[in-house]
Amino acid sequence: MNKIEQKAITTIRMLAAEAVEKAKSGHPGLPIGAAPMAFALWKQMKHNPGNPKWAGRDRFVLSAGHASMLQYSLLHLWGYDVSMDDIKSFRQWESKTPGHPEYGMTPGVETTSGPLGQGIAIAVGMAAAEARLAEHFNRPGLPVVDNYTYALCGDGCLQEGVSAEAASFAGTMKLGKLIVLYDRNHITIEGRIESTFDEDVAKRFEAYGWQVLKVDSGEDIDAISGAIAEAKAEKSKPTLIIVTTEIAYGTSKQGKASAHGEPLGQEAIAAMRDFYKWEYPEFTVPDDVRAYFDELKADCEKEEASYMAMFSEYCEKYPELAAEWEAWHSNKLPEGLEKDERLWTADKDIATREASGRVLNIMAEYMPQLFGGSADLAPSNKSEIKGKPYFSPDCRDASNIHFGIREFAMAAICNGIMLYGGLRAYCATFLVFSDYLKPALRLSALMKLPVIYVLTHDSIGVGEDGPTHQPIEHLAALRCVPDTLVFRPADMKETSACYLAALESENPSVMALSRQNLPQFAETSIEAKKGGYVLRDCEGTPDVILMGSGSEVKLVMSAAAELEKAGKKVRVVSMPCTELFDQQSAEYRESVLPKHVRARVAVEAASTHSWYKYVGMDGKVIGIDHFGASAPANILFKKFGFTVENVVSAALELINK
Amino acid sequence: MNKIEQKAITTIRMLAAEAVEKAKSGHPGLPIGAAPMAFALWKQMKHNPGNPKWAGRDRFVLSAGHASMLQYSLLHLWGYDVSMDDIKSFRQWESKTPGHPEYGMTPGVETTSGPLGQGIAIAVGMAAAEARLAEHFNRPGLPVVDNYTYALCGDGCLQEGVSAEAASFAGTMKLGKLIVLYDRNHITIEGRIESTFDEDVAKRFEAYGWQVLKVDSGEDIDAISGAIAEAKAEKSKPTLIIVTTEIAYGTSKQGKASAHGEPLGQEAIAAMRDFYKWEYPEFTVPDDVRAYFDELKADCEKEEASYMAMFSEYCEKYPELAAEWEAWHSNKLPEGLEKDERLWTADKDIATREASGRVLNIMAEYMPQLFGGSADLAPSNKSEIKGKPYFSPDCRDASNIHFGIREFAMAAICNGIMLYGGLRAYCATFLVFSDYLKPALRLSALMKLPVIYVLTHDSIGVGEDGPTHQPIEHLAALRCVPDTLVFRPADMKETSACYLAALESENPSVMALSRQNLPQFAETSIEAKKGGYVLRDCEGTPDVILMGSGSEVKLVMSAAAELEKAGKKVRVVSMPCTELFDQQSAEYRESVLPKHVRARVAVEAASTHSWYKYVGMDGKVIGIDHFGASAPANILFKKFGFTVENVVSAALELINK
Repeated sequence: MNKIEQKAITTIRMLAAEAVEKAKSGHPGLPIGAAPMAFALWKQMKHNPGNPKWAGRDRFVLSAGHASMLQYSLLHLWGYDVSMDDIKSFRQWESKTPGHPEYGMTPGVETTSGPLGQGIAIAVGMAAAEARLAEHFNRPGLPVVDNYTYALCGDGCLQEGVSAEAASFAGTMKLGKLIVLYDRNHITIEGRIESTFDEDVAKRFEAYGWQVLKVDSGEDIDAISGAIAEAKAEKSKPTLIIVTTEIAYGTSKQGKASAHGEPLGQEAIAAMRDFYKWEYPEFTVPDDVRAYFDELKADCEKEEASYMAMFSEYCEKYPELAAEWEAWHSNKLPEGLEKDERLWTADKDIATREASGRVLNIMAEYMPQLFGGSADLAPSNKSEIKGKPYFSPDCRDASNIHFGIREFAMAAICNGIMLYGGLRAYCATFLVFSDYLKPALRLSALMKLPVIYVLTHDSIGVGEDGPTHQPIEHLAALRCVPDTLVFRPADMKETSACYLAALESENPSVMALSRQNLPQFAETSIEAKKGGYVLRDCEGTPDVILMGSGSEVKLVMSAAAELEKAGKKVRVVSMPCTELFDQQSAEYRESVLPKHVRARVAVEAASTHSWYKYVGMDGKVIGIDHFGASAPANILFKKFGFTVENVVSAALELINK
Repeated sequence: MNKIEQKAITTIRMLAAEAVEKAKSGHPGLPIGAAPMAFALWKQMKHNPGNPKWAGRDRFVLSAGHASMLQYSLLHLWGYDVSMDDIKSFRQWESKTPGHPEYGMTPGVETTSGPLGQGIAIAVGMAAAEARLAEHFNRPGLPVVDNYTYALCGDGCLQEGVSAEAASFAGTMKLGKLIVLYDRNHITIEGRIESTFDEDVAKRFEAYGWQVLKVDSGEDIDAISGAIAEAKAEKSKPTLIIVTTEIAYGTSKQGKASAHGEPLGQEAIAAMRDFYKWEYPEFTVPDDVRAYFDELKADCEKEEASYMAMFSEYCEKYPELAAEWEAWHSNKLPEGLEKDERLWTADKDIATREASGRVLNIMAEYMPQLFGGSADLAPSNKSEIKGKPYFSPDCRDASNIHFGIREFAMAAICNGIMLYGGLRAYCATFLVFSDYLKPALRLSALMKLPVIYVLTHDSIGVGEDGPTHQPIEHLAALRCVPDTLVFRPADMKETSACYLAALESENPSVMALSRQNLPQFAETSIEAKKGGYVLRDCEGTPDVILMGSGSEVKLVMSAAAELEKAGKKVRVVSMPCTELFDQQSAEYRESVLPKHVRARVAVEAASTHSWYKYVGMDGKVIGIDHFGASAPANILFKKFGFTVENVVSAALELINK
């Protein structure tokens, strides 16, 4: 390594240490230890600080998100729109440099990270997206999609199960343009990793089908650069580069757990300045370092320019593909979809999972960029795009994915696919197993990635499989996740309306779908997009409002008919999406649920928690706040009180109060 | 294998196929394919059908829980209290033979299973418990704790990340008495596993430090028996036995995915009867098979009798240890704990995580059977039992565990520890990462295992680490889980009261604890055990009721003081556990929250969903239904509306309405 490179690396280290110190909070150890490998990587990376979003760029995921100051230092030095003032505002309100990298807040940050392990799975998703789009769009001599995906992770990421799931998937799929740098510093918060993580990581990744390279010293930038070049050359399998480092190298806290998650303190920083012979004031980028990075940036700009020239040639030569590229990269609702009559008709009683399968397959005709699958439940989830191939080492331009029995990695991979751009990701499993993937769904919401979660078998309607397979708390729990739409449609038309609302939203959507067949209502309509709407009404002020979602809409509809026979005035509200209903105008909401009508019954075969907001202290919720049981579904519904009689008597009790 | 063994195995297969057929639902493929290995295992297993709970027994976990009919067939044949009528009631309401094994419903079922991967982690927990208790209690010639833990899993379990986390932990800890049989039938619901799971599983487990043995044919019972014996002989590391099988062996659906999760159908069963030359009516155990198992059972009884004789000798020779054994195995609140003054005093402002650390350490003095730790956050979670060793290959009788950055396996391992008996498990991480472990927490609740979840950093009080580390929806989501107590204490005294309530409960408990320091209130008390109680009151009917939990209690207390200055009558209710409050008598609840007082303000720095139940449509919730941000905590509380002024003005608005 030459002298200016060394100095550049020291600058990264000093900025990281100083920013954490000023913020009085943060993680200095990893940025200092991993600075050489990150620098070496970025030098080989195809990127352009002046245009962080150009399609041809390599992707970089800092899976060890706590090392955010490493990334911010790199971004600043390379000339991204991250100023020294931004660095000084590390971890402050509304700054561009939050505690962990946050997608959308900082130019050049490709993904939110911090929840450990997920960055690796996100990178796997990006690499899968690249593979599919490359096969679909590239033409001889015009590789418009051709980039590597890099991730940098620490010991923590590799202890988490989600990275294991994702690595196994990546190995099977032979994602050869995925390269993970593993900063092996042997230190976590509780101390040396050997006390709980004594496995042979290299051997494990070889078992997954990865190439594994080792670099003995994180200071050996030539060896690191060589390993990266070797990784790039091996395109038939992903590569893990294990780099042995010292946490907080060159400070008096080197090798210590205390360097992980708190400021070094003035003493250790003083020692660090001595060690690195650093004589500049705080937050200084020496002029020669600045000049050096300016040159690197100029090279980056040239690289982008050359890509853009190729892209222009491509557009000229292949105008149809260029138009398709444009369509795939836009988020517009495809023309004609909403008017497709198949969305609005169902010949007979069908389960909403079946309705969902139909909608997905219709959508796929309009949106070939749909890309997804199930965690080994496709036949049950009805999630397959029929007649389309599955993604594999031999077939990249596929619509379907066998994610394997790996719910968490599946969802994180979908986040990676969406972050890559150009594709529309969805994934499927049973609603009860949303628990397994929830941490990734949270990142979908936080990053505003409109991943569609197809979650079938949405209640005790699961029947015989019993309580481990019957969701109870899940609907309510998912509704609590900010910026997430939870849909529970009642029939085919509502299912279609919910999918349309999902496609129009920038947020992730959950489709909670029945296993069992349900009646098709004449009254349902595209109005369902409002989240809640009047499905059946009476003259004048209702004596009681009955509301419900999904499979329980039939219950409230039948109960309403009974009550009307008894001379009561009843309104029925179908509520397929409480979040969208809450977003309607106060006027609309009042028109559906007039405040003065206090006799209200909500019915949903799930936790009651969601409904008190709508029935208040004077209404009643018929739900389930205990676990399910193993028995045929129709027996469970009866045993647990989901009967017309029960709804009618609850309504009468409120009316007569 | 001799003829009667072969016939015994065929009986297992036929019962499984017939029960699934009768139920019109279930999973016949794995039971049929894995019957020989399960039979071979149970023959070597130390167990007694007449007393399924004796301490000396080997533990068996059917991690592939969908193969429940395999276990029920074994239980029936070996003479457990599972009758042929029970077998015929497979998957029916209130039967002993639910769709998946359910702990507490069937004699001989050691754990609920079905959610894939978790069984392996539960088995790891059982093996860890055995290791600790053996070192603690055994004396020369008197190994009162000495058993193997077996798990039987399929491809699905090994694709799930949780099994990877647990296997890495088990390898590091050298849990040599853990033996996992892997039914490698290459088939999952979506087809051949190679399409998504092409890794070298043997190599992966060797990388974890396991012994790996292979048996080429699942029909080769001698090879399987030999492998089990070899596994038992290797006590310095856990063993994985990979047995290649054919799903639904001997039926016309052999090797097909369709054999996995639905009845075989009469045709395939007819073919099966031909293949196995089975001429008996449905649900028959031939007399010679019955006689054979009766003999096996008699051997089992002798084994237990010999253990009990040893145990008697032990009790006589070591009465103090016997008394300790008794204490560790009882669930009684330790005498004197509640009266310990240290629980009820705090000298200064401390965070509730700090209070929790103190309580845990006090508890450990009274309950040395406490056994737990953190997912690498012990210094932050304050979860370490000070002065006590960590569990390791060299130290088994330890109080602390380095779980590693493996939240999900951590919680599942705790379930295994609790299921083993004799120990009291707890685990710790940040509240936001409860997402990572939720599927195991759900099993704690379903099995009624009183695992204590120490979940610190319980709000935007996390501050600079930002939205990925700030829980929003988690409190509300956890409160929706049936049979789970979610505690959010306000200070030291409430923290102690919450822990006491947790120790008295048969359910799992979540302790949501602040990162930041909180004032210590004169008004708080052991009354907190009621879940909600009046902390500060007024004369006569209140104009407004303010309620809150945890770190927001100080806000409502300050707001109450302000409102009183303005001449308003205010009641303050502290609500550390809504579930316990809901369990109080209607009278008590009415005394705390009188129905006619409709001006109610709830304050909690979390999702508002939990509170509508208590404030109704006329009250107000001050909460957060959006993601957090990276900034110092005090700034976030202000920016997000958690100020005394805001609470006061909300209260006044309601009073003046």
